[in-house]
Amino acid sequence: MQPPKPLNPNFKEDISASFATFVLMRTIGAALVRVEPGEVDIVLPFRDDLTQQLGYMAAAIISGILDVACGYAAMSLSPPGTTILTVEFKVNLLAPALGERFVARGCVIRPGRNLSVCGGDVLAFKAKEEKIITTMLATMMTVKE
Amino acid sequence: MQPPKPLNPNFKEDISASFATFVLMRTIGAALVRVEPGEVDIVLPFRDDLTQQLGYMAAAIISGILDVACGYAAMSLSPPGTTILTVEFKVNLLAPALGERFVARGCVIRPGRNLSVCGGDVLAFKAKEEKIITTMLATMMTVKE
Amino acid sequence: MQPPKPLNPNFKEDISASFATFVLMRTIGAALVRVEPGEVDIVLPFRDDLTQQLGYMAAAIISGILDVACGYAAMSLSPPGTTILTVEFKVNLLAPALGERFVARGCVIRPGRNLSVCGGDVLAFKAKEEKIITTMLATMMTVKE
Amino acid sequence: MQPPKPLNPNFKEDISASFATFVLMRTIGAALVRVEPGEVDIVLPFRDDLTQQLGYMAAAIISGILDVACGYAAMSLSPPGTTILTVEFKVNLLAPALGERFVARGCVIRPGRNLSVCGGDVLAFKAKEEKIITTMLATMMTVKE
Repeated sequence: MQPPKPLNPNFKEDISASFATFVLMRTIGAALVRVEPGEVDIVLPFRDDLTQQLGYMAAAIISGILDVACGYAAMSLSPPGTTILTVEFKVNLLAPALGERFVARGCVIRPGRNLSVCGGDVLAFKAKEEKIITTMLATMMTVKE
Repeated sequence: MQPPKPLNPNFKEDISASFATFVLMRTIGAALVRVEPGEVDIVLPFRDDLTQQLGYMAAAIISGILDVACGYAAMSLSPPGTTILTVEFKVNLLAPALGERFVARGCVIRPGRNLSVCGGDVLAFKAKEEKIITTMLATMMTVKE
Repeated sequence: MQPPKPLNPNFKEDISASFATFVLMRTIGAALVRVEPGEVDIVLPFRDDLTQQLGYMAAAIISGILDVACGYAAMSLSPPGTTILTVEFKVNLLAPALGERFVARGCVIRPGRNLSVCGGDVLAFKAKEEKIITTMLATMMTVKE
Repeated sequence: MQPPKPLNPNFKEDISASFATFVLMRTIGAALVRVEPGEVDIVLPFRDDLTQQLGYMAAAIISGILDVACGYAAMSLSPPGTTILTVEFKVNLLAPALGERFVARGCVIRPGRNLSVCGGDVLAFKAKEEKIITTMLATMMTVKE
């Protein structure tokens, strides 16, 4: 496949600016680390205050950063002056969310004027090891800002 | 349908004790407010530090409390000495997560020894008004604690 | 909740006419048996030529009639001159699809001008017994015919 | 990633034998065309009697062959003497199912003793052109035959 072509020449700046206003990402310590056409990475270090009853990072947080990565992946291919809302997503939690840090990579599977379909994974990193712990399939909607 | 019968006579206490160790719930200010056989409610007041780029509560948080409500609904019908892990879930975000507080209600659709299928909704409350803002369909796995 | 109000006074006739052109439904022997605002039932008798490797009705068929019931439920609340396409759906297969006949009931959870969110179940009937065997959560799109 | 290792040395024969008893696949004219460890392809020629109200192949059929491809992908990594049941799946329908033939490719994302997570796509072929029309994320369960 040819790489998808951005409709917004300033998509990187616009996504960074939007992410900066996404308060939850700051609250949990997530950072936007890579923005390419149709592909966005968000990184999150492990934090005790975000864990569930067995000490793993909670599904809410892991699926949450992946949803946001998918949304910004969709935004990278959307026209200027738009933002993205999640219509729906489905996640499979493949393995316990244990590790020093987590990287959520969201990708556009099929861009669309109104609806984009995105997919992505979260990788957990521990020492030298990396492991897929979560996978998502999501539908995103482009809306005027 | 007849109401489902709990296998664990202490399910209320065990769920409360488990919820108390679910650190993320405390971090975001969520409370377990109702535990019945096959049905659990979690309430969350609106908080600015949990919002997304448009000022609504982030999908991570809304779907997160609903996932937890579904998980504990499954646990209410599971044997003593077990806990619940989420295998997967799918959420539809129906309306902006705006309101003074949010109530996630998780229900068991089909209990099972290993896998339980659960569904649930999040209601947003604002003044006298209430509104369904999110709906979920999820698969939960019972594991020995 | 108040019952949803149809925008198309002829929704019953239009849905019946559309269903009559849905060739697969005729091929598998499915019938449209109930059309109300926001709710549609499709019935399918058991047939050996639609089974999977263990002799149950195949997931394709059971989820297929439920998808169609959900789609027409959305159409019952859509404006005249429109039809429905499925954006996505998720099904949980709760129990083996065994029985003399199956009834798929699709319901609109949240109607929308462009997107409607629907849910539904398939019941299996055997002698006097009935059982939920499948549940779905789906996103439907209204398009001009 | 290293390629997954089959636990059943006769997985190809066993999957072919199981597919031969999957009556619906014969009914609709689907063929098993490729079985590798963790990856299975099913091909289906276009047929008028499997279409929906706009003349496209019905979602039931397209998602059905993909579900079966995912299930046999899981079976390719399962122990001898087992078969696969679908726990749940989610599909996004990306484009109208038009074409001369359709190829469903199911892949194992994470194999498991009891549960395997699979993903896959359906490609539509028309003249020289190919196009992704559907994508799936599914949970499969290994059961003793």
